[in-house]
Amino acid sequence: MKLRVYVTLKKDVLDPQGSAIKNSLHNIGFKSVSDVRQGKVFELNINENDENKSLKETEEMCKKLLANLTIEDFKVEIAE
Amino acid sequence: MKLRVYVTLKKDVLDPQGSAIKNSLHNIGFKSVSDVRQGKVFELNINENDENKSLKETEEMCKKLLANLTIEDFKVEIAE
Repeated sequence: MKLRVYVTLKKDVLDPQGSAIKNSLHNIGFKSVSDVRQGKVFELNINENDENKSLKETEEMCKKLLANLTIEDFKVEIAE
Repeated sequence: MKLRVYVTLKKDVLDPQGSAIKNSLHNIGFKSVSDVRQGKVFELNINENDENKSLKETEEMCKKLLANLTIEDFKVEIAE
């Protein structure tokens, strides 16, 4: 089963990388951009055919490794 | 308007970071994971209310800055 995990910074956490990208976009002419936030996506293949079990296991992975829950939120979804 | 951009490595491009994450997941007990690929998400706010114009402009940003088209694919969608 293929799953997709989105890890994004929590709303109130500063995102210097996003700011840098916004500035670069402005510099090359995209003045209409008012905000950029950067996050991560993980595409995982798991040897497990049960949707619920896959989702639960992947949430565990997020809590233990993929996301830093102090500053990040995560979302898991079935990709296929 | 809020848009979301997904940038992922093309299928045939090696992803050492993904492999490292897979190994780490194995090491902490998630043996069922057979593959991990890592990508990026960007959440952009644009001062533009026309959906088509926003999408086109964001695609331009991907081609010029956000994605490296030699090794990466991108996907743009309206977030809200």
